[in-house]
Amino acid sequence: MKSGLKVIAPASVSNLACGFDTLGMAIDIPSDEMIGKWVDTPGVHIIEITGKKKDIPLAADHNIAGITATALLKHLGEDGRGLELRIHKHIPGGSGLGSSASSATAAAVLVNELLNRPLEKRDLIRFALDGEMVASGSRHGDNVVPAMIGGLILIRDILTYDYHRIYTPRGLFMAVLLPEISISTRTARQILRPDVPLQSMVKQGANLGSFVIGMHNTDLELVRRSLEDLVIEPQRKHLIPHFDNIQETALEMGALGCSISGAGPAIFALCQEKLQATDIAAAMQKVYDDHKLPARSFVGGIHQEGTVLK
Amino acid sequence: MKSGLKVIAPASVSNLACGFDTLGMAIDIPSDEMIGKWVDTPGVHIIEITGKKKDIPLAADHNIAGITATALLKHLGEDGRGLELRIHKHIPGGSGLGSSASSATAAAVLVNELLNRPLEKRDLIRFALDGEMVASGSRHGDNVVPAMIGGLILIRDILTYDYHRIYTPRGLFMAVLLPEISISTRTARQILRPDVPLQSMVKQGANLGSFVIGMHNTDLELVRRSLEDLVIEPQRKHLIPHFDNIQETALEMGALGCSISGAGPAIFALCQEKLQATDIAAAMQKVYDDHKLPARSFVGGIHQEGTVLK
Repeated sequence: MKSGLKVIAPASVSNLACGFDTLGMAIDIPSDEMIGKWVDTPGVHIIEITGKKKDIPLAADHNIAGITATALLKHLGEDGRGLELRIHKHIPGGSGLGSSASSATAAAVLVNELLNRPLEKRDLIRFALDGEMVASGSRHGDNVVPAMIGGLILIRDILTYDYHRIYTPRGLFMAVLLPEISISTRTARQILRPDVPLQSMVKQGANLGSFVIGMHNTDLELVRRSLEDLVIEPQRKHLIPHFDNIQETALEMGALGCSISGAGPAIFALCQEKLQATDIAAAMQKVYDDHKLPARSFVGGIHQEGTVLK
Repeated sequence: MKSGLKVIAPASVSNLACGFDTLGMAIDIPSDEMIGKWVDTPGVHIIEITGKKKDIPLAADHNIAGITATALLKHLGEDGRGLELRIHKHIPGGSGLGSSASSATAAAVLVNELLNRPLEKRDLIRFALDGEMVASGSRHGDNVVPAMIGGLILIRDILTYDYHRIYTPRGLFMAVLLPEISISTRTARQILRPDVPLQSMVKQGANLGSFVIGMHNTDLELVRRSLEDLVIEPQRKHLIPHFDNIQETALEMGALGCSISGAGPAIFALCQEKLQATDIAAAMQKVYDDHKLPARSFVGGIHQEGTVLK
């Protein structure tokens, strides 16, 4: 225990075109790492943040991981402890890939592991949600839950922790393009119109229901038809340069669907297999390269374990 | 063939609380019957309508069954034929139980059977939809498809016949109260606000997705939580006297959900088994009896076959 325990927390793609504030999927691209150990000085001490650390405060009471760890220690009657954290962020903040959520789930799982698992993962979710709330100002769970327990998740009602794992056929892969621009979740929410045409609600709901059926039945053509966003994407896509071009490229190359991940600017393309995802990620990257715009791309399968001890 | 062939077409409950214009379920309450035979005089001749025949015209070119049969005969190059139809309506029009849809599916299946099944049922759906369109002014398929093929159906996009059967656990039963008032589908549509709050869209969609998961996983408590209508029911329930009282009664007695069937006035309560449905139907009936208001009640399982030769 001298060097501490290490946990990893995956990135996640939320919304998934047809499930605004409802669907989220943990993905196996470079994950956040957090190392923790007990120290003599009481309180939570973040001694190091490396990687995509832009704008992340070291002060534990302003840091999502620090806030989550502190709240969980208090809940467990262990707030007299001294905890030292070292954080390596692979998931950049403001990317739409659930960076805040992963910081929160990593801290919650790490504290729980250090204390020899007094709680189940499902009991840790609320501490991670509370921690994420500090950053995003909202508490939806469509990143926190998949980051915590892995897989593809539908949130029915996060206030009552009413979330459900959706079966996913084998082999699905994500291609992700992450333009190097920052979009704040608050801004991305503020631009949304407060109302939706009734007919759009009907179509969006039918797509969400069909997406679930398609996944359950391994009917990937149905999944493809269902991955359509009539409501949110049209209002947000202008925030991301060349979005239409990228989406068209991915769909022409056979992606099952392509839309904005969370509040963006990350763009995901759900693919049927790894090779296709690799090709599509390269093609999406090329759109930005051709315009001399900075971006990175990733491919990864569905992360089925969520946040775990490494 | 002297007496003709007989088909039966079931009633259907559409919307199902969380799936406006999307979900429909065929139910095994008294079904429409239609008897047809070839006659010498060309054209479609409706010689008799019995039962709940209020306002149903005998003239074939103004009658849903007549219009559907005529269109199908023409499509099959059989419009030189003479067809005589006798219709026994058990499903009253303007009830919210898919009466028009059942007239249309019955006529389509009857013509197809008389011609020794040149088409599959899935090919008959568009003729039934066209026929129903004449009556309701809209073409949603959430009654026609379940009435035709049976079971619980999700319509993703009726324009492309993109509909899907949802697995249903064994034993589910419907209790239905049919108040003897008439609500036109057109009126029930006209009172709906054209827009929906974004947050209601999110919750309604999450309920629809959860309903599918609940059915697939035989998680009836999830089905229960998902059978909630935040959008349509609040705008329509004032059209049905004592709706709140009936809904409360059904839910208190353990119904999984209770809401308006289609455009109403029929009220459905989805139940876990037949005895519960029987008790709940009696209790819903009692609410109307106590107020000296006319209504009828039914119980029935899910009609899995749809419109069939009897």
